Amino acid sequence: MADSGSPTITVDLNADLGEGVGDDEAMVGIVTSANVACGFHAGDPFELLSTCRAAAAAGVRIGAQVSYPDREGFGRRFMDIESARLTADIIYQIGALQAIARSVGVDVEYVKPHGALYNSIVSHELQADAVVAAIVELGGTLPLMGLPGSLSLRLAGDKGLSTITEAFADRAYRPDGTLMPRSEPGSVLTDTGEIARRVVGLVERREVTAVDGSVVAVDAESICLHGDTPGAVEHARAVRAALTDAGIDVSAR
Amino acid sequence: MADSGSPTITVDLNADLGEGVGDDEAMVGIVTSANVACGFHAGDPFELLSTCRAAAAAGVRIGAQVSYPDREGFGRRFMDIESARLTADIIYQIGALQAIARSVGVDVEYVKPHGALYNSIVSHELQADAVVAAIVELGGTLPLMGLPGSLSLRLAGDKGLSTITEAFADRAYRPDGTLMPRSEPGSVLTDTGEIARRVVGLVERREVTAVDGSVVAVDAESICLHGDTPGAVEHARAVRAALTDAGIDVSAR
Amino acid sequence: MADSGSPTITVDLNADLGEGVGDDEAMVGIVTSANVACGFHAGDPFELLSTCRAAAAAGVRIGAQVSYPDREGFGRRFMDIESARLTADIIYQIGALQAIARSVGVDVEYVKPHGALYNSIVSHELQADAVVAAIVELGGTLPLMGLPGSLSLRLAGDKGLSTITEAFADRAYRPDGTLMPRSEPGSVLTDTGEIARRVVGLVERREVTAVDGSVVAVDAESICLHGDTPGAVEHARAVRAALTDAGIDVSAR
Amino acid sequence: MADSGSPTITVDLNADLGEGVGDDEAMVGIVTSANVACGFHAGDPFELLSTCRAAAAAGVRIGAQVSYPDREGFGRRFMDIESARLTADIIYQIGALQAIARSVGVDVEYVKPHGALYNSIVSHELQADAVVAAIVELGGTLPLMGLPGSLSLRLAGDKGLSTITEAFADRAYRPDGTLMPRSEPGSVLTDTGEIARRVVGLVERREVTAVDGSVVAVDAESICLHGDTPGAVEHARAVRAALTDAGIDVSAR
Repeated sequence: MADSGSPTITVDLNADLGEGVGDDEAMVGIVTSANVACGFHAGDPFELLSTCRAAAAAGVRIGAQVSYPDREGFGRRFMDIESARLTADIIYQIGALQAIARSVGVDVEYVKPHGALYNSIVSHELQADAVVAAIVELGGTLPLMGLPGSLSLRLAGDKGLSTITEAFADRAYRPDGTLMPRSEPGSVLTDTGEIARRVVGLVERREVTAVDGSVVAVDAESICLHGDTPGAVEHARAVRAALTDAGIDVSAR
Repeated sequence: MADSGSPTITVDLNADLGEGVGDDEAMVGIVTSANVACGFHAGDPFELLSTCRAAAAAGVRIGAQVSYPDREGFGRRFMDIESARLTADIIYQIGALQAIARSVGVDVEYVKPHGALYNSIVSHELQADAVVAAIVELGGTLPLMGLPGSLSLRLAGDKGLSTITEAFADRAYRPDGTLMPRSEPGSVLTDTGEIARRVVGLVERREVTAVDGSVVAVDAESICLHGDTPGAVEHARAVRAALTDAGIDVSAR
Repeated sequence: MADSGSPTITVDLNADLGEGVGDDEAMVGIVTSANVACGFHAGDPFELLSTCRAAAAAGVRIGAQVSYPDREGFGRRFMDIESARLTADIIYQIGALQAIARSVGVDVEYVKPHGALYNSIVSHELQADAVVAAIVELGGTLPLMGLPGSLSLRLAGDKGLSTITEAFADRAYRPDGTLMPRSEPGSVLTDTGEIARRVVGLVERREVTAVDGSVVAVDAESICLHGDTPGAVEHARAVRAALTDAGIDVSAR
Repeated sequence: MADSGSPTITVDLNADLGEGVGDDEAMVGIVTSANVACGFHAGDPFELLSTCRAAAAAGVRIGAQVSYPDREGFGRRFMDIESARLTADIIYQIGALQAIARSVGVDVEYVKPHGALYNSIVSHELQADAVVAAIVELGGTLPLMGLPGSLSLRLAGDKGLSTITEAFADRAYRPDGTLMPRSEPGSVLTDTGEIARRVVGLVERREVTAVDGSVVAVDAESICLHGDTPGAVEHARAVRAALTDAGIDVSAR
């Protein structure tokens, strides 16, 4: 319970939906933001429409999960695309999802790059620039969701864009605040109770315990839940319940 | 010059641009409306952007040339797509092009189906419905360009949508007002002077001489020019010059 | 057990594998022939390779499941492709899978069209011709699997190709020997015992009871099992067990 | 004419065909080897078939021009594909083209990676390994065409594969034997006479003059001609004529 008198903390819960790999029906009842694939790494227009309709019905905020044009590799492989072309790719995807969302009465409210693009723009200046430019050229009203401290969020801020920082519910952190690569043992947490406790601590104290036991500052406005790992739905439910029990407001706004 | 006293006739000239097959640079200086591919039968996001930028610079109206998802076949092959999926495909394409256009400061101002879809919705009720539904679900503000008398335009009218009728500058007509199939000899006119004279007559008198010599009523607000046939640019220039000489206002509005 | 003295009946069991939708691991242990997607309606090269490797390890015969180029629609939508182009599409797919199979030490041993193409060539002469021509142009050694009585199998026979007739384990038949469309109630059988008994009867007596109670002759060298419906694996196991119990040899050769 | 007594030098001339960008009809009459796109960066099955048919008619050797799966970027962008997946991609492409070639009575006789993949495997070990592994897994009979001194050719040799070294007719060389990047001024030669003379010298003396005037050893069994640059056909004709005049045998074998 939050102490009366202290201001209520709010946090958003986001997950990838509409990629055809997880239990979307369950997840849309737990999260407050849905990252919807735009057809470049997954999803066809009808799947996008179905996902947007489900998100709209559940009152869940919709974000455009933009990707490299790499359906075969599910957007998980770095592509050395020149900046102007990448910007056009991003604009195309956002616009396509905006129209799909509009057709079911809702709006796209943020942009979250997917997969290898997400990782690339943490440090790749030309590609980070390209993503930011896409949002600017569409009017600059869509916030960019990403990793706290990433180059992309910094460039977005420089251009006057809003940003949404996120942390990962089930990923181990290194002492420098970056994520342990998935390939390393222990990089993905699997204990439901531990995941839930960590998220509450992360939201309340804005810090997380790294793999070496040190405490790392992590400022996250949203928590990314995975919808496609074993136990994903159970983890997500436990995280949401633990946050609510701790008096934290789970909301996208 | 039009005689003072008589009202000025206005006609639009449209052509497909951005498909990578014709002389876009020349055509954008002649037409008043550009049908821009949306990536399903041709064009990638960067090509769409370049085409929209060129059209915007030339003050040419932009239309979304929506297609079946058939890049291999350039959208020229009938696909038996169920209605709800086709609607989603159309919404996706329009939205993608809208964002691309918006990024260069202009709007998509009409929808023109491409290739086999264009022909299908002349009579295929489920697909005509699907196209009309897409425009309705996006707010119903975009006019649908198509063949006079087609089922799609009638259904569009029934739903309160605006429509733009078009005729073809270089195609032979049958006595019933339909086009001679391209596969038949004489179906495509190649004499520049004849094409130009026919278009002027068609616009001034709203009729055209069919292959059997009979006169057919054709009510066209726009004339479709081909940008990718031999002599295309020469034909287009001649048509525009002949219309202007006849005192006809060539304009998209 | 088959009576000693009477010749042993042999039947093949086939299922679609490598489409990413069913329990391939279980199915590959039950069937004797695997219809492997070739990348046009589903599957990427690495998935094809994994499926071929699993089939090879299990001693299961591999067939090329060729399709329209329609990944978005999973090959389930009729496409009006001209004959020469369809032939090239089929040759391309067969060759791609042949190389993948060869790289794991096995061969593609038959061709089975998928989805809408399967249905089309039951009666569409140009497309049936196109499929047959593809096999002929590759040397004419690959058998074509399809519906008994279909135009495609007849044309294949006319060209000297081998054919493999198949029946469907869980589909209701109409009195004329065709399948009830999936859209009609009762078209898909769900009772495991009934499915198993029907298959045994079909193989032993070469007939099946149609929906109106009449008995229809069905001559099938292979039985198609579905791998992606609820209870699919259970049905498949029951069918195989019932055939074995009845003394029928389950084998692709 | 070559002096009687001295052994005749032989060189192959190769160019990319079937990408839909150059004058294939002219080029197929000049080159002795055609690098045929396999559908991943350009070309659909019917285009592949047409190109193979034209090459077969002209007696031109066919090579599989394998690429990253990046049609939007024409295969010109590095993709960080994991080795096993890249191998599967290559096997798939080679097999597809082999079947297409076989259907017109000829064989694929070598493999030449395209675009960014060509450049990557000059030094990227995992990807070079992946390409070599694909050829090995297909039986190890196809030679790999590439840059002299590249890692890929060395690894190919280590695995017992044949290799074909090539030089570029119209590209400037740096003193270390690598090509000047296209982005730098002077990197592409445009004078027909100079190109022809350089190629003859390169073939006769196995050396070329670099941009700084130094002489670089270049051992090339094939000369790559561009089919899609301005003057491409004229350059190609001049190169072939100059080689013939110098008594050099222009042949793929």
